[in-house]
Amino acid sequence: MKQLFNNEIINKEIDWFSSYSKTPINEGVTRLLYDPMWRKIQADLKTKLENKGFDVKYDAIGNMMAQIKGTECSDCVIATGSHIDTVQNGGRLDGQFGIIAGYLAVEYLYKTYGPPKKTLEVIVFAEEEGSRFPHAFWGSKSMFGLVKKEDVIGSKDKAGNTFEDEMRESGFDFNADDYVARQDIEAFVEVHIEQGVTLEKENLEIGIVNNIVGQKRFTVELFGESNHAGTTKMSYRKDTIHAFSKIALMCFDEANRLGDPLVVTMGQVIPSPNTVNVVPGETKFTIDMRHTSEKALNEFEAFTLKTIDKVAKEFDMEVKVDKWMDELPVEMGDSVIQVLKESAEEMGLSYKIMHSGAGHDSQIVAPFVDTAMIFTPSIRGISHNPLEETNIDDLNHAVSLLANALYKLAY
Amino acid sequence: MKQLFNNEIINKEIDWFSSYSKTPINEGVTRLLYDPMWRKIQADLKTKLENKGFDVKYDAIGNMMAQIKGTECSDCVIATGSHIDTVQNGGRLDGQFGIIAGYLAVEYLYKTYGPPKKTLEVIVFAEEEGSRFPHAFWGSKSMFGLVKKEDVIGSKDKAGNTFEDEMRESGFDFNADDYVARQDIEAFVEVHIEQGVTLEKENLEIGIVNNIVGQKRFTVELFGESNHAGTTKMSYRKDTIHAFSKIALMCFDEANRLGDPLVVTMGQVIPSPNTVNVVPGETKFTIDMRHTSEKALNEFEAFTLKTIDKVAKEFDMEVKVDKWMDELPVEMGDSVIQVLKESAEEMGLSYKIMHSGAGHDSQIVAPFVDTAMIFTPSIRGISHNPLEETNIDDLNHAVSLLANALYKLAY
Repeated sequence: MKQLFNNEIINKEIDWFSSYSKTPINEGVTRLLYDPMWRKIQADLKTKLENKGFDVKYDAIGNMMAQIKGTECSDCVIATGSHIDTVQNGGRLDGQFGIIAGYLAVEYLYKTYGPPKKTLEVIVFAEEEGSRFPHAFWGSKSMFGLVKKEDVIGSKDKAGNTFEDEMRESGFDFNADDYVARQDIEAFVEVHIEQGVTLEKENLEIGIVNNIVGQKRFTVELFGESNHAGTTKMSYRKDTIHAFSKIALMCFDEANRLGDPLVVTMGQVIPSPNTVNVVPGETKFTIDMRHTSEKALNEFEAFTLKTIDKVAKEFDMEVKVDKWMDELPVEMGDSVIQVLKESAEEMGLSYKIMHSGAGHDSQIVAPFVDTAMIFTPSIRGISHNPLEETNIDDLNHAVSLLANALYKLAY
Repeated sequence: MKQLFNNEIINKEIDWFSSYSKTPINEGVTRLLYDPMWRKIQADLKTKLENKGFDVKYDAIGNMMAQIKGTECSDCVIATGSHIDTVQNGGRLDGQFGIIAGYLAVEYLYKTYGPPKKTLEVIVFAEEEGSRFPHAFWGSKSMFGLVKKEDVIGSKDKAGNTFEDEMRESGFDFNADDYVARQDIEAFVEVHIEQGVTLEKENLEIGIVNNIVGQKRFTVELFGESNHAGTTKMSYRKDTIHAFSKIALMCFDEANRLGDPLVVTMGQVIPSPNTVNVVPGETKFTIDMRHTSEKALNEFEAFTLKTIDKVAKEFDMEVKVDKWMDELPVEMGDSVIQVLKESAEEMGLSYKIMHSGAGHDSQIVAPFVDTAMIFTPSIRGISHNPLEETNIDDLNHAVSLLANALYKLAY
């Protein structure tokens, strides 16, 4: 059986979550850390889950933990969940669907099979996106002792509100005792939309994530010479767009040669003065590179830096390279991947073992807990956008697979 | 003798012109068509030239013509001059130095040799830059019947002033009789800064211009797909910056292969959304290409359009190409070039016969009148900028060469 749930109920829950938004429905869901909508849904969700029989508490900074206690080992926790915050004008699935999938699955198991042997827990991470304050993964990092009070004190949002004021007005506060990694979680499964086109293109119902890519980001500045576009011979030019195009093409060609799962993006390109009849004397561009293998990512970084250096020398240009992100790939846990595979096969779901090219709370949890993710196909790969969508049948498959896996893990 | 003038006097005249500026001296010279500074210098310059013995009049739209009448043929005009307007925050030489060189040379000849056989005329073109209203070459085009009232009626500057109101408040008006090309000019020599680095790099004192390049300008838009920079495999992407870099590099490589005097510039590049972690779904860029040969320019245009088409097909992208400028190259007149060459050789000036990569009034005049230009070296090629400069000795060489050539042509 591929679907254990009623599509209507899943949709109703998504609509309920989506209504807690600062923006009207056609402009997508906007619910940022510690803002009024965040406060409201945290309170209402607690009530909703308590009414379903969950034992609900918050930690000091506002992560919510909703448990159905295990009968044989109440301190052995099998957890699921995702983050409750969104990006500005985000979609109706990113983050919140992982929470919905979590409590629908646990509620189903509890109703159908009674209390589990091990405790089942739905985790509502307070924040993942970094959309209001520049502190992505605040929720999951707090839960595993990876952030300190000092990291966020003094941070302000665009309106000038401080992190700590907004936190305190939401009813939360720093608590030194929380900065210790939780030890009680045995397994964690996060349901999330793919945010890519792989499952859709390959016509698959489910992705089981075995790795979250490492990523490096750079800002590169080329310093050539601004010249008149008519009066400066080609041989007298130091054209930074010419140099950029050479660097870009060499890196793209190498990335294509190396192939999947390496990806490289030069998303931002800003020549200066950016005028039709002036040779661009400076060009600033970004590079975003990701891979599931630390070694392969380092090798591609070395190739890229060597290429930049070589081309800059060839054009007799100064160059400045700023690496401002360097995150390692994170392996998911084999045992949980195995449970998800078995469950998917039992249920007849078409699936693939795949990596995630985007970051998720699971990458914070995985070094501490056996972790894996369930991906649903994203229509046209759209995410962080009001048009973000997944077929309801595919959402149902994901909740059903989660329920099956949690049963195997906790009963 | 390379220098017939006193450097101090040349500098004093340049300073006098530069003081007629809307912007303070350190922000460069700003004097736009029909603006208060334009009106003031036109009046003061008329008085100055009359005091030097010139017979000065304006045409209907405000071109100034200052003559020393010829004793043998007063209707045979040997002319020199340039434009009196500047770009916003321009330099102290572009345009106005050609006027100064003109009246200093004619004054010198008149004082030294008495009245010429043919009439000597300094032309002060009302406008060339197109900086206030989008009508470049308004002065020279008016003088040769190439523009009509209808072309400019209704045009407004940024502040909303209309072209015709500003013209009338400057004391000028349209006059149907002016829209006939002048027939009385036998030769025209324009002195101008090079605005490039060729003379400086080749350590030459003078450039004698035999051709003004043709130019074509395009805006190209590539339509691919915006995708998540992490979750979209390389093989699933339609990355417009990847496609752009391929097009750009192929065109630059071909231009370098073909060599001087072809130049190609992709001065403006605007990817969208222009964000580090999104594959750019659209990229808009400009192409500026110039050559002295119409045939060679057309061939490079064909290569470029074929390349764009080929790459867009390879990447499965839509593409839109808008050609919004297509100007033919203009040959200068052999007889005047010959006079300038002889004069330069007599005077021992180091020079080269070269083309101009920028547009000048001479390209409008040349189809009607035997025309050539004298270029002075531009320090670091800088122009249209407060830092625009030429060594005073080089300026002196140019005025001296002009005087020598005008002597040969008019005495």
